[in-house]
Amino acid sequence: MTHRIAIIAGDGIGTEVMPEGIRALEATAKRFNLDLEFTTFEFGSCDYYLEHGKMLPDDWFEQLKGFDALFYGAVGWPDKVPDHISLWGSLLQFRRRFDQYINLRPCKLMPGIKSPLAGRKPGDIDFYVVRENTEGEYSSVGGKMFEGTDREVVIQDTVMTRTGVDRVLKYAFELAQTRPRKKLTSATKSNGISITMPYWDERVVEMAKGYPEIAVDKFHIDILTANFVLHPDWFDVVVGSNLFGDILSDLGPACTGTIGIAPSANINPEGNFPSLFEPVHGSAPDIAGKGIANPIGQIWSGAMMLEHLGYKEAGDAIVTAIEEVLSEGDATVLTRDVGGEGTTASLGKAIANAI
Amino acid sequence: MTHRIAIIAGDGIGTEVMPEGIRALEATAKRFNLDLEFTTFEFGSCDYYLEHGKMLPDDWFEQLKGFDALFYGAVGWPDKVPDHISLWGSLLQFRRRFDQYINLRPCKLMPGIKSPLAGRKPGDIDFYVVRENTEGEYSSVGGKMFEGTDREVVIQDTVMTRTGVDRVLKYAFELAQTRPRKKLTSATKSNGISITMPYWDERVVEMAKGYPEIAVDKFHIDILTANFVLHPDWFDVVVGSNLFGDILSDLGPACTGTIGIAPSANINPEGNFPSLFEPVHGSAPDIAGKGIANPIGQIWSGAMMLEHLGYKEAGDAIVTAIEEVLSEGDATVLTRDVGGEGTTASLGKAIANAI
Ligand SMILES: CC(C)[C@H](C(=O)O)[C@@H](O)C(=O)O
Ligand SMILES: CC(C)[C@H](C(=O)O)[C@@H](O)C(=O)O
Repeated sequence: MTHRIAIIAGDGIGTEVMPEGIRALEATAKRFNLDLEFTTFEFGSCDYYLEHGKMLPDDWFEQLKGFDALFYGAVGWPDKVPDHISLWGSLLQFRRRFDQYINLRPCKLMPGIKSPLAGRKPGDIDFYVVRENTEGEYSSVGGKMFEGTDREVVIQDTVMTRTGVDRVLKYAFELAQTRPRKKLTSATKSNGISITMPYWDERVVEMAKGYPEIAVDKFHIDILTANFVLHPDWFDVVVGSNLFGDILSDLGPACTGTIGIAPSANINPEGNFPSLFEPVHGSAPDIAGKGIANPIGQIWSGAMMLEHLGYKEAGDAIVTAIEEVLSEGDATVLTRDVGGEGTTASLGKAIANAI
Repeated sequence: MTHRIAIIAGDGIGTEVMPEGIRALEATAKRFNLDLEFTTFEFGSCDYYLEHGKMLPDDWFEQLKGFDALFYGAVGWPDKVPDHISLWGSLLQFRRRFDQYINLRPCKLMPGIKSPLAGRKPGDIDFYVVRENTEGEYSSVGGKMFEGTDREVVIQDTVMTRTGVDRVLKYAFELAQTRPRKKLTSATKSNGISITMPYWDERVVEMAKGYPEIAVDKFHIDILTANFVLHPDWFDVVVGSNLFGDILSDLGPACTGTIGIAPSANINPEGNFPSLFEPVHGSAPDIAGKGIANPIGQIWSGAMMLEHLGYKEAGDAIVTAIEEVLSEGDATVLTRDVGGEGTTASLGKAIANAI
């Protein structure tokens, strides 16, 4: 069975780490005898925007919808195109039109990676952030009034639907069921955001009734971010709205020291549309073009993609290879951000070899 | 000149730390020859709600508006009254009706307090979070439609006004001007929250023109929370919307290990209405009634109150006394959360003596 993968490298270091992501996938395909077929697209980048006045061609949906997965680099280059244009014109379109309503990110202490938290070691921190990925605070409803005057007022709606909230909660509860600790933490702010967030809480209580074996707790987002730093070992699966999930899924990897190498998955669980896999890091204009970007985030995202396509063992093999290369700690191989003097390619090749 | 201070202890440990807050203020008043007059109010607590069906009497505004400051303990007891009722019925009323549009919180590594971050020592982290305190994401506009059906949709508006945004930015720029590093960081999310947040960014750019000596940068809230953990030394004054400021002003003290002892000020800079001073910690139902709550947050809030009333030297004396007692590290004095075996009263008395 052939799996068709669309490749969109995007901007900046996206174009540098993508070849290493593909290299790792090809090595894995060989070892596990998988049939992966890659098709590369130029759109979804700021350079494409500068040439065409839009981030994507009009028929992007038709072009991409038949693929089994999208493998994405990084998008955005604020000096060329404002972020809210480049992101809303690409990544956020994919998430929404392909109904990738789950954003999933692992937060895991890895061997050889220094955590900024005192006294934590691999094994101590290992949880998932499940983020709602299509609605909530990321709405396109709102506007400005009395523009340019002292009475100027700007309004933006947060929109939560029962469909949207329930399906992300269901996914999170089911993920918690597969985990040894069977624990789910809900991010809320119902003491301050007094309309949407109490609703979120209500739906959590309702959904929990169907999963009596899951231990559920909730924290307001302010103290929850504090607890990521103070008690990261408390967490197993953490679920949040689009904005809260966004925050927690950067903060989590920061606490494990993996923000530069963490992966993420934008998933349509029903498989009606392709899911999208991308590193957490952005396009990093400051180091773009130097060949020093760390490709692990891209490679690890490839592991999540294989797991999503049904090849958990193959995905695990990639993660194991990453851990092996990090543990070895060969400075000629590792990139600078993790203490070495190597390049994007040297690290990518070492991981492909380990696979 | 007599300064009239309204005392509202609130719920849980609020009622236990308040006497120590007053004790420290009385010691300071004696030393610096200040005339402080305290008036205690029972309302603004969940017990008051249970008795009266509301958090505040109808004439609270009239009763309180003539005071020079409000000294507040902690409010909330979810088993008695849901948080969104108790908070919106008290604290958030004060903030809004007394137009306390600045929420100010110091994030500072203190001697004798363990930071959860590796390798940081007193002096390394010392910044302020300035939060917009009256509008933004904490709105009361919105509602529910198709209730109880699968089409259920819940909407809440974020509302930013030019008046509201500009005045908090102005305060933050002016605070940055008083600091040696003269640095201001703005919290945004204009790449995702595409209507209100680009507006916030625009106003920052506009306001910055009037303060050419201030170095301004901005981060999206997701990576900003990550940077609080990874690079807390980067920050000097950080300004954010109501929600972002709320998150950052819990996360900041968490990073310095001071979340249980940090103070906060809710300020009406023009002095048209009383400002309000309260510890960051909540009412902590789990340890309430045991006499073991740490009173430093309350005492330190008193220091911010004195500074606001024009007595910077007196305020500094309180902070110095706190630092002294923490440095001494006498286990019979310190409360459990900071490694001792003492009580709320033993720690409060030691600080009052040091003053
Ligand atoms: C209790 C809650 C409503 C409040 C807020 O979010 O403003 C608190 O977290 C704070 O920061 O003072
Ligand atoms: C780039 C931005 C719009 C995006 C988001 O906020 O969703 C990013 O931070 C992410 O988490 O993928």
